[in-house]
Amino acid sequence: MKNIDFGNVRVTSGFWHEKQNMVKNVTIDSVYNRFLETGRFDALKCLWKDGAPNQPHIFWDSDVAKWIEGAACSMHIYGRDEHLEKIIDECVDLIEKNSDENGYFNSHFLVTRQDERFCHRSDHELYCLGHLIEASVAYYETTGKDKLLKQMCKFADYVEKVFKIEKSAGFVTPGHPEIELALVRLYKLTKEKRYLELAKYFVDMHGIANPSEGLYSFSENSYNQDEMPLRKRATAEGHCVRAMYLMSAAADIASLYDDSELFNACERVFDNIVNKRMYITGGIGSTRIGETFTVDYHLPNRSAYAETCAALSLALFAGRMQELDENSKYADAVERVIYNGFLSGVSMDGKSFFYENPLEIDPDFNNVNTSTTEKEKHPITERVEVFDCSCCPPNIVRFIPSVSNFVYTLGNDTLYVQQYMSSDAEFDGIKISQQTNYPSGGEVVIEYSGDKEYLALRIPGWCKSFTLNAEYVCRNGYAIIRTSGNAKIIFKMDMPIEVVMSNRRVHDNAGRVALMRGPIVYCIEGVDNGEDMKNVSLDIHGEFELGECDFMVPSIKTVGYRDVASDKLYYPAEDCFEEIPLKLIPYFAFANRGTTEMQVWILKK
Amino acid sequence: MKNIDFGNVRVTSGFWHEKQNMVKNVTIDSVYNRFLETGRFDALKCLWKDGAPNQPHIFWDSDVAKWIEGAACSMHIYGRDEHLEKIIDECVDLIEKNSDENGYFNSHFLVTRQDERFCHRSDHELYCLGHLIEASVAYYETTGKDKLLKQMCKFADYVEKVFKIEKSAGFVTPGHPEIELALVRLYKLTKEKRYLELAKYFVDMHGIANPSEGLYSFSENSYNQDEMPLRKRATAEGHCVRAMYLMSAAADIASLYDDSELFNACERVFDNIVNKRMYITGGIGSTRIGETFTVDYHLPNRSAYAETCAALSLALFAGRMQELDENSKYADAVERVIYNGFLSGVSMDGKSFFYENPLEIDPDFNNVNTSTTEKEKHPITERVEVFDCSCCPPNIVRFIPSVSNFVYTLGNDTLYVQQYMSSDAEFDGIKISQQTNYPSGGEVVIEYSGDKEYLALRIPGWCKSFTLNAEYVCRNGYAIIRTSGNAKIIFKMDMPIEVVMSNRRVHDNAGRVALMRGPIVYCIEGVDNGEDMKNVSLDIHGEFELGECDFMVPSIKTVGYRDVASDKLYYPAEDCFEEIPLKLIPYFAFANRGTTEMQVWILKK
Repeated sequence: MKNIDFGNVRVTSGFWHEKQNMVKNVTIDSVYNRFLETGRFDALKCLWKDGAPNQPHIFWDSDVAKWIEGAACSMHIYGRDEHLEKIIDECVDLIEKNSDENGYFNSHFLVTRQDERFCHRSDHELYCLGHLIEASVAYYETTGKDKLLKQMCKFADYVEKVFKIEKSAGFVTPGHPEIELALVRLYKLTKEKRYLELAKYFVDMHGIANPSEGLYSFSENSYNQDEMPLRKRATAEGHCVRAMYLMSAAADIASLYDDSELFNACERVFDNIVNKRMYITGGIGSTRIGETFTVDYHLPNRSAYAETCAALSLALFAGRMQELDENSKYADAVERVIYNGFLSGVSMDGKSFFYENPLEIDPDFNNVNTSTTEKEKHPITERVEVFDCSCCPPNIVRFIPSVSNFVYTLGNDTLYVQQYMSSDAEFDGIKISQQTNYPSGGEVVIEYSGDKEYLALRIPGWCKSFTLNAEYVCRNGYAIIRTSGNAKIIFKMDMPIEVVMSNRRVHDNAGRVALMRGPIVYCIEGVDNGEDMKNVSLDIHGEFELGECDFMVPSIKTVGYRDVASDKLYYPAEDCFEEIPLKLIPYFAFANRGTTEMQVWILKK
Repeated sequence: MKNIDFGNVRVTSGFWHEKQNMVKNVTIDSVYNRFLETGRFDALKCLWKDGAPNQPHIFWDSDVAKWIEGAACSMHIYGRDEHLEKIIDECVDLIEKNSDENGYFNSHFLVTRQDERFCHRSDHELYCLGHLIEASVAYYETTGKDKLLKQMCKFADYVEKVFKIEKSAGFVTPGHPEIELALVRLYKLTKEKRYLELAKYFVDMHGIANPSEGLYSFSENSYNQDEMPLRKRATAEGHCVRAMYLMSAAADIASLYDDSELFNACERVFDNIVNKRMYITGGIGSTRIGETFTVDYHLPNRSAYAETCAALSLALFAGRMQELDENSKYADAVERVIYNGFLSGVSMDGKSFFYENPLEIDPDFNNVNTSTTEKEKHPITERVEVFDCSCCPPNIVRFIPSVSNFVYTLGNDTLYVQQYMSSDAEFDGIKISQQTNYPSGGEVVIEYSGDKEYLALRIPGWCKSFTLNAEYVCRNGYAIIRTSGNAKIIFKMDMPIEVVMSNRRVHDNAGRVALMRGPIVYCIEGVDNGEDMKNVSLDIHGEFELGECDFMVPSIKTVGYRDVASDKLYYPAEDCFEEIPLKLIPYFAFANRGTTEMQVWILKK
């Protein structure tokens, strides 16, 4: 099975169309300007000298590369743009000009540590190359311009020589995976099998070669994905983004080599995440220390790490898994991520970003400043325009324009509809369109013509009942419809407000519930509901109504209960509540109205 | 008003008698042996050389001093003990031998940094002296031996010269208060006013002199109690033990100088603690970072710092405040501390200790090891026999034998009964005895003869109803009884099981209640109740019964409810509980049966 590239699936209206417009009109420019101000673009000139400001950082090339990829994806949708291409072409020229005779380019090492090339496993050289490869592929696919692509092929060849053939590098596998999935992408475009084999080589060597090399002082082998060979894994460990980028590549390798052992390992890790280590928002990473997975069911809300990039990387992994196995759990995970823990990473105006996406904000306590240099480190309470470690903003720039990568998967005789969004698609002799106001409503009208005998509509995990205007059988979470080459399907998913609880072992959620409607997770904010959100309870059998659409989808209204205020610290327990009107907004829209309390998991009355 | 020294109030049976026996029979020897093994006693020889093991630490003298004080207090109760006196006399001889001509002694500075005396504000020289003074007073009061006392007077005179007269030291006030209250104690014994004046000088200079000197990298001015002059304070800030030792001295100064401005500041700080910054156990300190107070209502349970010494130091402060003001809130705080957050610091067998006393233990998550060198730092889950920073064990050794320091306060015409424990006392022409099985039961029989017109029995804050076999009026939390010089009072406090809730602003306790009976706070443990203690709820209107006395006071039995186990991580909310028999034990006895879950704040069903 294969996913259909976003280039063949044009989002036409509705939720994601609005988000893609936002990226085109605001986010691309905003991130560009912040990166320009902070010297990330100038770094490509390789003119930095000791003592000058803005010393190129080890991962700056990846920031620029992801921005280029995002701009290219956006142009793929909206048409080419002279201004953007001029910027990108200048970048490409600089990269070409400053690459050495081997094709090597790295704006940090070339100006600060010329002699230390490929010596430091932790220093992101191959990670940067991976993102440059992805940028070069996207830019070529949008514009046909191949200068960067050729340059990156040359660089990739050099990496193959140094790492795989001569084995002369100072380390075997990169500390931060990314090159692996980029090489697969390069292979898919160029059909040069050596890139695929190099990707497989890196994937296979993780957990075998140099397991404790390149460790930060605070990290363990799992941080760099060295705890064991991939094929033996049963749990998700270490740095979440590293883990998910590597598992994404592993899923690609499993697919392209038809490697069931590797697939089984991927599935075990995937299941471990979605059954035991994932926030309800699709966020992953339970601690800021190492930005890592921790142990099963350890999902603290206030100190959640749940990085935007980590959520996105889980979608990348799950999206690849849906190519390997007919099981709606993968697309369910993609959906959970894209509407919640990923999307919360960007403000409604498209200009500012969260790195961490906690499920609870308590400003008085988040900002507890117990010391001048070391805080109880909790996530920030409002989004900002740029971080020192600004991996998340350009990841949003590239992800939203390409979100329709996840919509269709093509099998031998079946076309899978994995995600629902208004869109027109044409590929492999197939034409298919969707009309829907999803996720505000659950009705999707699908018009299809093509030679696949079956259409498989994912029945989302949240969906308890639906109607279809066609005969179907249910299989592995899909409604399978036999078509005669043309079909107009009306799929009506009931989308009530659902009260959700979590496994009793998630101790941080004990006694608490969350509200969802369709794929959207909701939260309460202080700005709507007053003080002490953590003390507010709701009746799970109470009445819930849809309210205004302040943030793209309806809000939810119900009655909340809060202990009556007291001057005492401890006092005899009594049932003494005040009733308050309670308004819930979509989680992805939290913290768009200043610093305020926020709570996803709400007390059960 | 003045408190009656424990030397005049002999505990005769019951709860504290058992604890005093434990200290006498087990804890004194156990702590001695651990200190001997770790080189703390040998350090007094001042023979340590570079490269040898057990380099004397800056605070080791204080560990030994507190142990001496504790042994002396215990001998005061149980009679003199040749073996203990031999150990102590050897220590005293070593201190005398190695003190210089000025009386200066410090086993760390004398062997490692001879030239750096009184240069480092953070390095505990005056703190160690303070504890040596307290030891010398206690040893003299028990044995009449004055060698150490004389030596410490000489040392104190030297400190007065260097710090107050010549002002030639490298700092003005000590980073860690303790000398202040020790000097007051020395003054009370010797009647030498210069010691009192020196204490007052240090108290007054805090927050005025060198506010940012001697700070650790992680700390702020408040850490060393320099955020502002004491008289201006309204909140408790910084390192809890430092704060409480200093406030204890401030209360002494307020009393001895009749200084109402200082008393008012002490009361404001006290009220801030007990109304906004104190755990239900009497523990204080909401973060391990700097071991500090944080902000109002920030009382996290699992990561609580709540050091044993901090609880004890709050009792020292509150005990002094009860001399200054007729208000039962001070003795209520003492009681809360001594039966809960202080007493939990020592195991039931008297051999092992907690530094931190959390209100929740979740071993799977407490021990989350996300990295090799930096953990999510949570309290340990079982007590240990010795720590590197072993301030708490000898504080227990000195506190329990002297606990009857808190029982009586003598006013002009009134004798206040602040704490209830079986005891015989004789002082100032008064004879008073108590017979009670408190805190297992609430009946106290008091026999009194003396010339004070009034007996004032504290009505504990937890006590909602009581009977007295005499006429009384209630005033400031006391039942005031007029006597004719002889009285036999039968005071029956009803002691039902109480369900207690906390202020809604304590977000970590939202939706949760704690059980108390009398002064005892209860908890549930996994060893009694199975898994997932944080998910267990109880009906606040349910039935509660007293159970067996496994740990000195009755346990509590009721019905608990726990969500039915599920394989799913998130699922539709339903009312699907399992009922379990729930057993609660006194908090002070938690973690005496291996590593297990523990929870003070229990979900409300």
